[in-house]
Amino acid sequence: MTIRGLTAGTPLDEPGKIAQIVVPALGDATMRSSLSNGATAELLLGAGAQDDCAAFRLRGDLVLVAGTDYVRGPKFSLYEKGFLSNYDIGWYLAGANISDVAAMGAVPVGLLSVVRYPKSLPDSDFAELIEGIRDGARAVGVLNVGGDIGSAERIILSASAFGVVEPSNLLPRTGARPGQLLCLTGPTGLAGSAMKLANQGEDISGDDYSALLARWQRVSPRVEHGRIFANHPGVTACIDTSDGLKGAIETLARASGMAVDVDEACLPVHDSVRRAAASLNHDALQLVFGDSVDFELVAAIDAEAVTEVARECAESGLELHVIGSIRAGSGAMLSRRGVTTNIPGDVWRHA
Amino acid sequence: MTIRGLTAGTPLDEPGKIAQIVVPALGDATMRSSLSNGATAELLLGAGAQDDCAAFRLRGDLVLVAGTDYVRGPKFSLYEKGFLSNYDIGWYLAGANISDVAAMGAVPVGLLSVVRYPKSLPDSDFAELIEGIRDGARAVGVLNVGGDIGSAERIILSASAFGVVEPSNLLPRTGARPGQLLCLTGPTGLAGSAMKLANQGEDISGDDYSALLARWQRVSPRVEHGRIFANHPGVTACIDTSDGLKGAIETLARASGMAVDVDEACLPVHDSVRRAAASLNHDALQLVFGDSVDFELVAAIDAEAVTEVARECAESGLELHVIGSIRAGSGAMLSRRGVTTNIPGDVWRHA
Repeated sequence: MTIRGLTAGTPLDEPGKIAQIVVPALGDATMRSSLSNGATAELLLGAGAQDDCAAFRLRGDLVLVAGTDYVRGPKFSLYEKGFLSNYDIGWYLAGANISDVAAMGAVPVGLLSVVRYPKSLPDSDFAELIEGIRDGARAVGVLNVGGDIGSAERIILSASAFGVVEPSNLLPRTGARPGQLLCLTGPTGLAGSAMKLANQGEDISGDDYSALLARWQRVSPRVEHGRIFANHPGVTACIDTSDGLKGAIETLARASGMAVDVDEACLPVHDSVRRAAASLNHDALQLVFGDSVDFELVAAIDAEAVTEVARECAESGLELHVIGSIRAGSGAMLSRRGVTTNIPGDVWRHA
Repeated sequence: MTIRGLTAGTPLDEPGKIAQIVVPALGDATMRSSLSNGATAELLLGAGAQDDCAAFRLRGDLVLVAGTDYVRGPKFSLYEKGFLSNYDIGWYLAGANISDVAAMGAVPVGLLSVVRYPKSLPDSDFAELIEGIRDGARAVGVLNVGGDIGSAERIILSASAFGVVEPSNLLPRTGARPGQLLCLTGPTGLAGSAMKLANQGEDISGDDYSALLARWQRVSPRVEHGRIFANHPGVTACIDTSDGLKGAIETLARASGMAVDVDEACLPVHDSVRRAAASLNHDALQLVFGDSVDFELVAAIDAEAVTEVARECAESGLELHVIGSIRAGSGAMLSRRGVTTNIPGDVWRHA
């Protein structure tokens, strides 16, 4: 199939390429494979689903999920500015990829990493990078089971994570239903605040901003939350906030064909984000909703189930915040001191 | 764990990094995960195995294999010289990654791709690249089920492929046994010949060399061969020739703790490789064994099973060449007109 209607002008941005090129090319395929012993693999969520992971149903009782994320090398500006070590970016690579598996409600089981390095990189730096990947994965019970290493002009990091989930427990981003509550696993905007402060020339390595930088240094994918969500039938949709909270909410609403109303008063706002907002002369909500890779989860949960899910989270020492509700309709809005507005902040765009 | 004994001098090359850093950091871990319905995932082959893929046993009747390969962007010199199109390098990305799954004897079921592009890349070129990935995967029954796209300074391609295989049929590279025959699925050296001719300034786009360039344009991972091997109990080890034939044979011998004797008279040598050797003033065997990414498979097969395996291949229109034998010992040697020598050619090294 040839893609039609592409013009020779300015290339499309990433969302445009996905909508006009990738989904038409890849979106509608189905597959089912059988082995000689009767085991089967069947595609549940492919490229067209545009979910955190692809998903395959294996035989009757297991769904395999798999996702992949490239971590920008030279654009990893906090690394270039010296705020992140080689160990840190290794950990980040692991955590960012495992977050996609967590967002499907799956138990992550393996990580494959691609590590390309300039030949001049000292071996001790390379070793720290590998150790960071290993430890970031092990922190949530995952092994780095191999991958690809070799030289390149500069550091290039990419990985794939995969996991398994009970067929009835898979959490797509399409499952939100009218009357459900929208829940969030922790405060957002910390990672983006660190980036914005550093870009403004601030030294973010001090104690004042340690919580912000920690979001980059020790990504903590919400695997435990994901499993609590997956095991509860009242949780029907989930997505991670790797494109920021606004991006996650809007995508969940669009994918589910629902409207989302967020209540400002319910949003968890970290003190460090308030301080960053003051320093940046920003509205704190812009940071909370904006392009910040915090790797929290947003989930749609039946109203009558929220108390029990929140209790299970609390028993494991985990946060859960009800931040809004879902209704028939489309779009996502913010209720702010009684006034309904658009949700502030920018969605993460690779351009 | 901190890696000890690294010196501050010249960084290690890739094999050195793997042996002294990656395997000590990642090699010895084990894991087993359970789901609420009793399904389990257990690591069979991790980073320490250094096989084509990692492998997990899922519940009782299925092994998941997964591998990842980065395809060099700016070093993809045949692309830069205009001999490969965007469609071709997309197809190559799919085929190269699926080959790792085929080498484990598995049915490939999915491909995740990472495509990073310079913002100036015309959309039609980007679309061709995506179509190449899609078609390279579909040619062997595999779907591109998603991945990561976004901008970068230049084209960066990476992917992960995964597949499923019956637990008793998994083909590691460690399984060769004394008395087995060494078999090869087709002629090698074509891809490397194309590269060497182009580097010497030859125009390889003409009919004389079309078979050589086709190895890059339409990578054909040996999925059918892999499944015939997997389903036959007399086949116990397999590896692909992505590091060249010499590299594959030496790795199989070392991983299995065996010696391999190759017989020159049995090697398939493609006419185009003979012509390339003449043009390059090379010994053709250097090209046959050397650093050439032909994505053929090398397998260790019980002597009494070879006839049946070869017949099954022939019935599917597939080649199979007995090129040597396996015995207790170590190392790989070539018998050439009655004289035993080292195997010529260079092993692919990323450096």
